[in-house]
Amino acid sequence: MTQNLRIPGPTACPEDTLEELSRQMINHRGPEFADMQKRIMELLKDFFRTENDVFIYTSSGTSVMEASIVNTLSPGDHVLGVTIGEFGDRFIDIANAYGAEVTRLEFEPGTAANPKAVADALAKDPAIKAVLVTHNETSTGVTNDVEAIGKAIRAVNPEILYIVDAISSLGCLPFHTDAWGVDVATTCSQKGFMIPPGLAFITLSERAWKAYETLKMPKFYFDVKKYKTYSDRGQPPFTPAVSLYYGLDKALNMIKDEGFEQVNARHAHIGEYTRSKARGLGLEMLAKGPEASNTVTSIRMPEGINAAEVLKILNSEYDTVLAAGQGKLMGKIVRIGHMGIVDESDIDAAIDALEKALDRLGYKKPAPVGA
Amino acid sequence: MTQNLRIPGPTACPEDTLEELSRQMINHRGPEFADMQKRIMELLKDFFRTENDVFIYTSSGTSVMEASIVNTLSPGDHVLGVTIGEFGDRFIDIANAYGAEVTRLEFEPGTAANPKAVADALAKDPAIKAVLVTHNETSTGVTNDVEAIGKAIRAVNPEILYIVDAISSLGCLPFHTDAWGVDVATTCSQKGFMIPPGLAFITLSERAWKAYETLKMPKFYFDVKKYKTYSDRGQPPFTPAVSLYYGLDKALNMIKDEGFEQVNARHAHIGEYTRSKARGLGLEMLAKGPEASNTVTSIRMPEGINAAEVLKILNSEYDTVLAAGQGKLMGKIVRIGHMGIVDESDIDAAIDALEKALDRLGYKKPAPVGA
Repeated sequence: MTQNLRIPGPTACPEDTLEELSRQMINHRGPEFADMQKRIMELLKDFFRTENDVFIYTSSGTSVMEASIVNTLSPGDHVLGVTIGEFGDRFIDIANAYGAEVTRLEFEPGTAANPKAVADALAKDPAIKAVLVTHNETSTGVTNDVEAIGKAIRAVNPEILYIVDAISSLGCLPFHTDAWGVDVATTCSQKGFMIPPGLAFITLSERAWKAYETLKMPKFYFDVKKYKTYSDRGQPPFTPAVSLYYGLDKALNMIKDEGFEQVNARHAHIGEYTRSKARGLGLEMLAKGPEASNTVTSIRMPEGINAAEVLKILNSEYDTVLAAGQGKLMGKIVRIGHMGIVDESDIDAAIDALEKALDRLGYKKPAPVGA
Repeated sequence: MTQNLRIPGPTACPEDTLEELSRQMINHRGPEFADMQKRIMELLKDFFRTENDVFIYTSSGTSVMEASIVNTLSPGDHVLGVTIGEFGDRFIDIANAYGAEVTRLEFEPGTAANPKAVADALAKDPAIKAVLVTHNETSTGVTNDVEAIGKAIRAVNPEILYIVDAISSLGCLPFHTDAWGVDVATTCSQKGFMIPPGLAFITLSERAWKAYETLKMPKFYFDVKKYKTYSDRGQPPFTPAVSLYYGLDKALNMIKDEGFEQVNARHAHIGEYTRSKARGLGLEMLAKGPEASNTVTSIRMPEGINAAEVLKILNSEYDTVLAAGQGKLMGKIVRIGHMGIVDESDIDAAIDALEKALDRLGYKKPAPVGA
């Protein structure tokens, strides 16, 4: 039996994309590679819903969070870091590492950022140049309303840079870079794109490019201008992960053929399906309202049951891999990833295994209502 | 017919390693991955000939050149940048990008760095904290004598950090991190390791770790301390290129089975063989003496023949891909990569195609001596 890998990335990949990875190398400075990169870059623009170029880095997700900061800001710049979990915290950590002056705006784990609170924080410090927001917080299973936050930001100051980590959302959930006024959007390969980790993507608005021209943060491998310069030739500035390009070329076409709206609808359905199945076990979701993510679900473990024990049993007895809680949530929740290729039967198997593991640990599922 | 890809990376990969890349994803925070990473890290120590840990980054070669600087230096630090070509220049560019005060010590393209000149430069500026050296300069096909340069450095000042880019050498040419007194050594996956690009490796000596504790350059994704902290659990700090780990796991064992000395001897032979075959066409090597690299050979094109034309014909007519010259050497040389899996028949085919392409462009091979 194949392992049921249900973590929020790397996601299980379809055979069709995995097969591509075994192809022989080609010259990344030659015409065949240039054709491929140009084709991929065009498709990525559709995925990001942007008119601007989307650049491809050989590195994983955190690298483009870093790139979005070092390519737009200077040490000492005032930044508002909106955090609803571990990845929001990471964004703040990166900005701090490069000497930005970060104001932290935190919301309770399991809840989304309140757009009005974002606007209020901006009104308090007119020196703020950029706002950092996580679209989908993988550590809690919550999706922020990037469109509403964008409107709140623009109402206070139209010139602020709106920097969004869309790592565990883009390609699964609706994301409209241009229409939502996002200045820097980033994502990577091992989530909705259905290929293994190792590639990351970034796009910059005209406003972000303008900021690039005056910024003072040091950078080299992540310097987006280098990627822009080389992209005219259909090349990246540094040797790329060629195998992953092969897989991406295939995967983007698969998603395009299915249709973006259909992919979004499929994720909306599987998100609701997962939550409903987990509630059926009498369990509580960390995210209770419409902010619940359609790519990852965080389930609170019952009182007295350690999530680490549950994950261990799932792994060793049922070949089912769910993710642990991170930071303060460690031991308290398990997380089920449902992005990319995933259907009801995968979720049924995961929830079934979860029920059995909990039963072993003494948890009794409540009787159905009315029974 | 398979394309004859003879560039200095990415190199053609054996089917055995490519096959591994199509394996399904696993949880990079789970036990199976941890076993694999620990196994790989042990083998990498053998490859680097070091007692210290070797860390694995998901990114390509330039990233670890950057990592070797941002993890050991502070803005304003005096650095000696020894350059014999494009990659030596890149090392200097990175150090400059992060605000180091770099003294440039340049040697003519096609020649190696003179250890005495390195010592003289150090004697002139006692404030120099680090020396940057390229082991094998891919752009010219020259190998520096890292051991001799190391001795020259230590004779002037035993505390200087010796930082070496071993990207196109390690795994092919002898490289002894500890015995040669190298403080930071770096390489990546697509050269001697016979797998595609996307992973990069770095090791730090005790002296380099001591420097880490006081340095002030900003960093996040490349922060080696994060890699060290996570390595105890058999994990990288950020989501790794899992597929490439599969390939690496296979490739390292293949090389180990062949034996390091045998691998080095095979590269020494194929380097000499390539130069001898090229000389047989009456062509001149850019590197004339024992500094000629055994992983990449730069061949001067005859007067009046543009290397770009030669490469175009090789590509379109003979399905043979050689590399162009970089920077000042563009148009003047072609480069043949001979690292990883390569045998005499691959070189015969490449030189045969080169002869035909040159013939088409009007070059006449000189008659054999004595004919």
